[in-house]
Amino acid sequence: MIKVTVWNENRHEQKNPLVGEVYPEGIHGAIASFLKEDFEVRTATLDDEFHGLTDDVLKETDVLLWWGHIAHDEVDDGVVEKVKQRVLDGMGLIVLHSGHFSKIFKTLMGTTCDLKWREADEKERLWVIDPSHPIAEGIGECIELEKEEMYGEHFDIPTPDQVIFLSWFEGGEVFRSGCTFKRGKGKIFYFRPGHETYPTYYHKDIQQVIKNGVEWAKPTKLPKPVYGNAKPLEEIKCKNQKIKN
Amino acid sequence: MIKVTVWNENRHEQKNPLVGEVYPEGIHGAIASFLKEDFEVRTATLDDEFHGLTDDVLKETDVLLWWGHIAHDEVDDGVVEKVKQRVLDGMGLIVLHSGHFSKIFKTLMGTTCDLKWREADEKERLWVIDPSHPIAEGIGECIELEKEEMYGEHFDIPTPDQVIFLSWFEGGEVFRSGCTFKRGKGKIFYFRPGHETYPTYYHKDIQQVIKNGVEWAKPTKLPKPVYGNAKPLEEIKCKNQKIKN
Amino acid sequence: MIKVTVWNENRHEQKNPLVGEVYPEGIHGAIASFLKEDFEVRTATLDDEFHGLTDDVLKETDVLLWWGHIAHDEVDDGVVEKVKQRVLDGMGLIVLHSGHFSKIFKTLMGTTCDLKWREADEKERLWVIDPSHPIAEGIGECIELEKEEMYGEHFDIPTPDQVIFLSWFEGGEVFRSGCTFKRGKGKIFYFRPGHETYPTYYHKDIQQVIKNGVEWAKPTKLPKPVYGNAKPLEEIKCKNQKIKN
Amino acid sequence: MIKVTVWNENRHEQKNPLVGEVYPEGIHGAIASFLKEDFEVRTATLDDEFHGLTDDVLKETDVLLWWGHIAHDEVDDGVVEKVKQRVLDGMGLIVLHSGHFSKIFKTLMGTTCDLKWREADEKERLWVIDPSHPIAEGIGECIELEKEEMYGEHFDIPTPDQVIFLSWFEGGEVFRSGCTFKRGKGKIFYFRPGHETYPTYYHKDIQQVIKNGVEWAKPTKLPKPVYGNAKPLEEIKCKNQKIKN
Repeated sequence: MIKVTVWNENRHEQKNPLVGEVYPEGIHGAIASFLKEDFEVRTATLDDEFHGLTDDVLKETDVLLWWGHIAHDEVDDGVVEKVKQRVLDGMGLIVLHSGHFSKIFKTLMGTTCDLKWREADEKERLWVIDPSHPIAEGIGECIELEKEEMYGEHFDIPTPDQVIFLSWFEGGEVFRSGCTFKRGKGKIFYFRPGHETYPTYYHKDIQQVIKNGVEWAKPTKLPKPVYGNAKPLEEIKCKNQKIKN
Repeated sequence: MIKVTVWNENRHEQKNPLVGEVYPEGIHGAIASFLKEDFEVRTATLDDEFHGLTDDVLKETDVLLWWGHIAHDEVDDGVVEKVKQRVLDGMGLIVLHSGHFSKIFKTLMGTTCDLKWREADEKERLWVIDPSHPIAEGIGECIELEKEEMYGEHFDIPTPDQVIFLSWFEGGEVFRSGCTFKRGKGKIFYFRPGHETYPTYYHKDIQQVIKNGVEWAKPTKLPKPVYGNAKPLEEIKCKNQKIKN
Repeated sequence: MIKVTVWNENRHEQKNPLVGEVYPEGIHGAIASFLKEDFEVRTATLDDEFHGLTDDVLKETDVLLWWGHIAHDEVDDGVVEKVKQRVLDGMGLIVLHSGHFSKIFKTLMGTTCDLKWREADEKERLWVIDPSHPIAEGIGECIELEKEEMYGEHFDIPTPDQVIFLSWFEGGEVFRSGCTFKRGKGKIFYFRPGHETYPTYYHKDIQQVIKNGVEWAKPTKLPKPVYGNAKPLEEIKCKNQKIKN
Repeated sequence: MIKVTVWNENRHEQKNPLVGEVYPEGIHGAIASFLKEDFEVRTATLDDEFHGLTDDVLKETDVLLWWGHIAHDEVDDGVVEKVKQRVLDGMGLIVLHSGHFSKIFKTLMGTTCDLKWREADEKERLWVIDPSHPIAEGIGECIELEKEEMYGEHFDIPTPDQVIFLSWFEGGEVFRSGCTFKRGKGKIFYFRPGHETYPTYYHKDIQQVIKNGVEWAKPTKLPKPVYGNAKPLEEIKCKNQKIKN
């Protein structure tokens, strides 16, 4: 069974009564709740010791989900480095919504990960543009969210390996809302929706996409590639020949 | 006319008489020499003040070439950050050979950029796998180098946007030797050949590929995207409606 | 100077007075008119002999533009095959708007190229999602068209090599409006806007994108790859050895 | 359980005693034999009625494997069209070795699918270049085949969505040996090895890759996208406004 760790900053929930009302057990609690139907799930938050991401926890994690927003800077650089190593070694990573500005996502992308945004209770419609992709399994043509925060292009990320969802926003913008990347042996899925004041993570289709994402991002079992100095596998004959260009 | 800066660590040339013999004016001098036929070229090296990459130089650079090997760690982090910003703002970057382990390449890739290697005077054959790509213009089916250092897969980079050359090595390995990436507004071309003890940069086809790379990597002129909070472009109507999921 | 042929079905212009009013010299005439500022341009239409695409014309064409809609079926299969061969041999192809359903585009894509559509005088906004791409040069964040036909996802095409523009439509859909592909030595650019009843091809930004597209799609000069039976480039030693798996 | 149909031309086996000796139950028999460990498998061959690919069989097939070589032309165009429709509707397709020149592969690719080849009992080494991909699961750094037919670049295919294996050949060539594509709702995996005179399909790693490929290519369950004329999902306001470009 796939072992999942749901990491959440868990600050809005403490500070903003509205958020606490929508997510009484925290965003991590809400996400863990539906993932438990299919996976072995634990949660971790910023205020836990080592942010709840000890070596043991990371070692025991197949797929890590990441939700953060107002406290990206408080995440310890050493923990970020350890998470990055685990991703390169094969752990799946699902970055949610405002996690686009997290240290871990930015260091894996190599870009600013900047974007346009607006909080205006506006409608979002996520269109499936890759109906062959397992992350879209069970979803119809699109997912409609009555109220969400807007994220608009240009989204400053490297070319994704795959784009699965494109969002339409009522206010006039579009966004690449479901993108995959690989880094080392690890698979990464960025999924846009999930502003803290909306009940987005209770939406059945959003839950389905996240479940599909976990399944897709699970580690591939094969030995770590061998790097560094390598002996020849075949005889090399041209030694001591003159260079002919 | 495209403004090019050729950056070179320039250490092997000082320490190893063999390298000094092959490249009496440094690897940067050899590269600048053929680029001058088509572009406005300056050079910069590690031991120059600010590594020769002042704000003014970077601002005046359309495409930066980078050769480094034994002194990656001596490159100042502040300079690396400035180069990264210029790439994200549109400056082209051509990373050569052992530059795969440079700070600038690793931070833009988000991976270890590790690989297999061997110095054994062996034959390399770079096959063109994308004959539609302008970087391959003027090249035949393949480029044959009688003696080169081997770099072998797995090459730990993100999925390239485009792979133009694949190398065959006498000792039994293969390598993605010509890869493009984009980061922000900037275009990046990694080109594998160029070990310091071989006259690779005097090879006409290698020179042609690097010239093509400069032409390809030149900045695209359009305004920097606007990021951050954005007012709606269209009227948003759903405010105060009930949430219907 | 790049040699361009603008091909147009030229039927709406004859049948629908409204279209004839918007494009008195035909859509091909309007497109040729602004391309002539930078390129050597000729036009060809469905009702010309061989649709205006003789062997000589095709041989002399660096980049072919294609606009068709109601008479895709009348395009001769032999001509389509010749155009396809020229693309595979390096000729650039720019497919405009309803050309998505042309024989030439469908045979090069291998899919149905189907999509959603609606004629409702609605607003389209094409967002630049790849500000590093030369096809976006000179364009701002987006291009706004007050009235256009809607094309919506899912657009049944293979994964594009690059997606440069995403469209937002007033009626609630999104679309990958600027996509590149390569086939053989040829480069293909699909660009969505251009319904026959709107003055889209007089819009300065649309003209700029098409000019950029022509520049981008021009043939790469290198010999055609050699296919078929090939003699070994290296000595093969394992003959007569036993098979060891 | 995934339903697999293994299609084989089955002509070499009848004509060439050497092939009959290596594959006494046909290449389809050998492949079906190991796939049966994990999947529900049937076989079909060229000389069966409708090539064994009736509407019922295709409807009941989740993933189709295709091996053909000397009789591509004998495959009925109507059957090819039906297979293509099933792929677009979600059936997985695994094209093996000389199937690169099959009608079904060429029509889905839109290119010639041509390549270099040589039968010289030479060594092939398939390197894993994407260790995150499930098709590489259980494989080491590379797969070594003592004797195989050579296929060399340039391989005239569209840019693959993913390249998982690169081959090194003793005679000096390289090849993209494991490539994925999507067309419509269907996933396609091309896997190079498998010349009829060698026992390649008895090799444990080759079998593992093909099993992984079947698992990866299985259909994604979601409704077929709706194409054609579409009513607006949002109110369109700009009607009767003047066009402002």
